Formats: sequence, C-alpha cells, structure tokens
Amino acid sequence: MSKYMSAQFSGLKAYTPGEQPLDMEYVKLNTNESPFPPSPQVIKVIQSEQAKRLNLYPDPEYTALRQALAQRYGVNKDNVFVANGSDEVLNFSFLAFCDANNGIAFPNISYGFYQVFAQLYHIPAKIIPLRPDFHLAPEDYWNLDCNIVFANPNAPTGLAISAAQVESIVQRNPKHVVVVDEAYVDFGGESCVPLTKQYDNLLVCMTFSKSRSMAGARLGFAIANEALIEDLDRIRYSTNPYNINRLTAKAGVAAVESEEYYKENCRVIRENRAYTETQLERRGFYTLPSQANFLFTRCPDMDGSTLYQALKRRGVLVRYWDKPILRNYVRVTIGSRSQMDVFLAAVDDARKEK
Amino acid sequence: MSKYMSAQFSGLKAYTPGEQPLDMEYVKLNTNESPFPPSPQVIKVIQSEQAKRLNLYPDPEYTALRQALAQRYGVNKDNVFVANGSDEVLNFSFLAFCDANNGIAFPNISYGFYQVFAQLYHIPAKIIPLRPDFHLAPEDYWNLDCNIVFANPNAPTGLAISAAQVESIVQRNPKHVVVVDEAYVDFGGESCVPLTKQYDNLLVCMTFSKSRSMAGARLGFAIANEALIEDLDRIRYSTNPYNINRLTAKAGVAAVESEEYYKENCRVIRENRAYTETQLERRGFYTLPSQANFLFTRCPDMDGSTLYQALKRRGVLVRYWDKPILRNYVRVTIGSRSQMDVFLAAVDDARKEK
Repeated sequence: MSKYMSAQFSGLKAYTPGEQPLDMEYVKLNTNESPFPPSPQVIKVIQSEQAKRLNLYPDPEYTALRQALAQRYGVNKDNVFVANGSDEVLNFSFLAFCDANNGIAFPNISYGFYQVFAQLYHIPAKIIPLRPDFHLAPEDYWNLDCNIVFANPNAPTGLAISAAQVESIVQRNPKHVVVVDEAYVDFGGESCVPLTKQYDNLLVCMTFSKSRSMAGARLGFAIANEALIEDLDRIRYSTNPYNINRLTAKAGVAAVESEEYYKENCRVIRENRAYTETQLERRGFYTLPSQANFLFTRCPDMDGSTLYQALKRRGVLVRYWDKPILRNYVRVTIGSRSQMDVFLAAVDDARKEK
Repeated sequence: MSKYMSAQFSGLKAYTPGEQPLDMEYVKLNTNESPFPPSPQVIKVIQSEQAKRLNLYPDPEYTALRQALAQRYGVNKDNVFVANGSDEVLNFSFLAFCDANNGIAFPNISYGFYQVFAQLYHIPAKIIPLRPDFHLAPEDYWNLDCNIVFANPNAPTGLAISAAQVESIVQRNPKHVVVVDEAYVDFGGESCVPLTKQYDNLLVCMTFSKSRSMAGARLGFAIANEALIEDLDRIRYSTNPYNINRLTAKAGVAAVESEEYYKENCRVIRENRAYTETQLERRGFYTLPSQANFLFTRCPDMDGSTLYQALKRRGVLVRYWDKPILRNYVRVTIGSRSQMDVFLAAVDDARKEK
C-alpha cells in the first residue's frame, strides 16, 4: 500500500482468484470453467465483420442483449441488468444496497468475494455458519435485520436449496434485499427467477462464465424487480456505463439463442460429474452431492493441500482452501470425460507415491 | 431509486454518456470515436481461433498486455495498470486515493465523470474554474491540500498544457496524487509518462478508445510509480479481478504493436481537424485551438442546442452541454474527411433554414 492510498483500505484483503499459471498447459479443474468452447453461433459473431466496428462504443443500454435475456427468462427488459461478469453485479449490489446501517449476511463457506466486497465498502457482515454437514439451513436466514447474499448451488460445496426454501428467506426479510447468486444453477439447481415477479426484494445474479462457456468474455446479469434494476443501473452509470465489450454484448445474444447447445453441454457435465463421483467413491473419497459443475471431495488419506500439490506436479490443477473446515477437501471442476480420466489417473498415481 | 437503495445515493446524479441512438445510422461526431477500424492485426486476433478459447478466464494479471505497454512507453510491467476502459482507471483512482479527508480538485469544465465519481464516493470536490478563455492555469493547482485530476488535452475544449506545466503541479503537491487523463494525448498533446519515473505521485491515465480505435473493446490503462499501480490493483482484486475480456487483452497487444497504423490515423485526424477548423472559420465560427480529436466551436448565429438539434435532424450527431459557459458551443468529433464534409454541408443547410 502506497502512502497515497486511503487509510480506509489498510486492512483490505483482496480476493484471490484461482491460479491461472502460464508456465505450462495444465488440465485446469480449478476455476469451474466449461471444457466446451462457446456455441458455434457465438464464435461466428465474434469472428464476423463486427470486429471492424470496434472503433465504436457499445449501446450503453445494451438493449438487444437485455431483450434476449428477458425473452429467455420470461421477464421484461427492465427486469434485466447486464454487467462485466457476475462479479460486477455483486460489486454493484453491495455498493447499491448496503451501507453502515444496512449490513449483509452470508454463509461462512460460500463464494469468497462476498467477504471482500463487505470489507471494501465497510459494510457490517453477519457471517452465518453452514450446518456441520455443510448444508445451508434456510431458517438461519429468517427475519434478519440486514441484506442477504448466498450462492445457490453454493460454492465450493455444490449443495443447493430449493426455490421454496429461498422463498422462505425472501418472504421473511421484506425490508432487505436477498441476492441469490445462481452462477451454477444450470447444472442442476432450481432457479428463483420466477419468484422475482412476486418479490421486489429478490435479486437473482447469473453469469455466462459457466454453463455458457464465456468466462473469457466477461458477461454477467441480474434479474429482479425493475426498481432494483434501476438502482444497479444508477451505480453502473456512475462508474462505467460502457461496461460490456461491444462484441461480447452481441455474442451474448447469440449465446442466449444457442440454448440447445448449452443444454447438451450441461447434460454431459452432469454425466461426467456422476461418473467422477462414482470413481472417487470407489477410491474411498467422501464427496458432497453436487448440483454444480464441480465436486467438493475429501481424500481418505491426504489433506487438501497435499493432494492439490501432488496433482499440480502431475499437471492437474484443482482448488483447495487453507481454512480449518475445508482443509481436508479439494474442489474439482467437472471437465470433459478425458479430463476427468486424467484427473483420476493423477489421483491414483499421487496416492501410490504416498 | 427503490426503497432498498442506500440513502447515501439519494442525491447521486449519474453520468450521461453521449447518445447512441439506434433508430437510424447517424454520422456520429458526438463521442470522440475514431472513424477508422482497429488495425488489421487487431482484427486478425479477434477473428482468430482464440474465440474458441473464450470458455477460459483471462490471465488476471494480464501479463502480456502489461509487458507490451511497458515496452511501448519505456517503463516496467509493474508500472502499468490495465482496466475495462479508462473510466474504470478513474473510478478506481477516486476510490483508492480519495476519502472524506482527502478530497479532489478538478476543473469546472472537464470530463463530466470526475464530478460523478466524487459524488458517488462522497469525496469533497474542489472545483477550479478554467480561465475565461477556457485555458487551464497550472498555478491554480499549486499547493492544494487534496488530490487532483484533469484531462490533458482537456475536454470538451481540446486545449492542452505542456508536460512542464503538468510537472509544476505534480511538484507542488507532493503529498497528493495528480491524475492526468491523457485520453486524447495522441492527437497533439505532450504526454507526462516520462515524468512518472521522477514523481511517485503522478498517475497518467490512457485509453485504447480514441487513437487506437477500440472504444467498443473497452480497454484503458494507467502508468505510474509501482506503488500507485499496486494500490489500483488492490482495488481491482477487490472488485473484479477478471476485468478485461480475454480477446481484448490479446487484441490490445496487437494494437500496441500496430503503432504505425495508428500514427498514420492520428496524422489524418490532425489533417481533417485543420481542414474543418479552416472551413468553420470561413463560416464565421469561433473555434478553440484543439490538440484533441474534436473541435469545440461556436456558431456565429445559433446556440449549441439549436445547432445540435438542426444537425441531428440532418443525420449528424454532435454534442452540446446545457451549462451557462458552454451553451453557445458544440463539440464536434473529427472523423474522416467525408464525414467532415457531411457535417459542414449540414451546418450550411441548417443555417440557410434559419
């Protein structure tokens, strides 16, 4: 920290994204990317003559993209907010709805960025422990006196709660915003988007980075009552109105229109998830039942850090956290069948060495 | 504003970007875009097989891009910060270096976003009037007790001060950060990048949106002492570490390597600027001597709003501001020679009608 930085950030601990090492090609099972390329229609848009128009700013209202998303999710354009990745949706949500008097509650084990946003903006955080088996108990979030955010399915556990359970939380916190981060919903979770029509305090946050294979394009969105969307847009127009790349916005429309392609990819991921889970079970691993594109799993004879390092030496990247409750687990992204076989072979090899 | 939005934003007036109407094709001379497409090398990168890798996140350190920029500007990689447009550089600069005790000074007439950032983060703003002929007097910025930001060349005036004049400001405010927004520097201004080696409180902010024809790609950067860059990175890693599109980062490298192409474009813009200025002078307009890719000009017989509207009806977009000092002017982006001829013909036609 330089002597010029505002003292308010002296304690700020930034987010640590999953490593993206450049030294060699790894089998990357550490940042929950899709193993599949974007749809052929998306690639066609990006490789089209549109590249020659990059001298022009995008439409800052991103009308076509919001319309496409509205149609896909059965809402109106004014119920859709678009952003430079869902991290930006979350960032703006913390900024817009929270302050010193309006704190935010989130699980102790969830997307690590919630804690960072709270710290960044000096927002009081109420951290609610998951139950010992890692499940999120909706009643722990009833009648809180603050905003709420959680991932559903949750990360890194992969566990999901039902839309009815989310509704119980939304209903019982009418004076505060409940942000449901559905980054992984397409792999088996139940979306709460339909509930946004009934509840003006529910904001559903989604991304093109996972099921839609566009992590590198940076595109996220939120669906909510139009007043909440207006609030987020007010922040967007006060920070970075042209927040999405012009080609990405066009590619996003093509992605929404490529539903069948992505549905099939999600089916394959679920199949590979079941396969990997079975294979790990045969090896004595304990794995949480995941609704996401990753598994949170515990090796019978190595802690998370040891397994992570042994796999990295073998060219396979997974993720682990050096936190007491998580220490024995690793999170493994579900990739292609051949990637999972490389991972399983590396696991076997690592355990033999031991 | 919804009932859920933090009360701290009740007075927030968001930025109003130049209009991007979708109803028809205009001759767009209102948002200072380049009339030229990105370089052939940039287009080649975007249309390459790289589009198929968009399922993967970018390198969050953007190493290759920062190295290319470092080489181009004669600094080290650690002196370069990259962002989702220079608006994001500015946003992060306000957040990182300013607070209730560390305000910021900027000219009354400059990029309108400075005022918005200050409001957003509740930063005390010291607004310093330009001199009556619109010039920025460096001595007005000497020995202030706060951070400083200004555009050089300034917008919408197009007037520039010399690097030595900037240095006088930087030297006389050693306890605060001076942000020089060089969005338009490639059209005739003198860059302060070399001064960043001497002064640890100087941050130079630049963009790929203007001279490098990539407004739609969203790419900006800053050059400064590495401690300031670390501060900005701390904010970036606390908001949106993957802030730049993967293809844009690769295209950015190609753009930096296409120096000759962009230099030639800037030469043409300066030529068209001189041509337009002469043509306007013949018609009795008063135009400030611009070092940027736009002219700030006053029609002898119409105020800014009237001229703007008359031109819009004729399919030509320019920009005007409804502020007392600016009311009689319009800002006209310098486009291709044929665009400028369409503009001049529309001016003639509008004045005939009158």
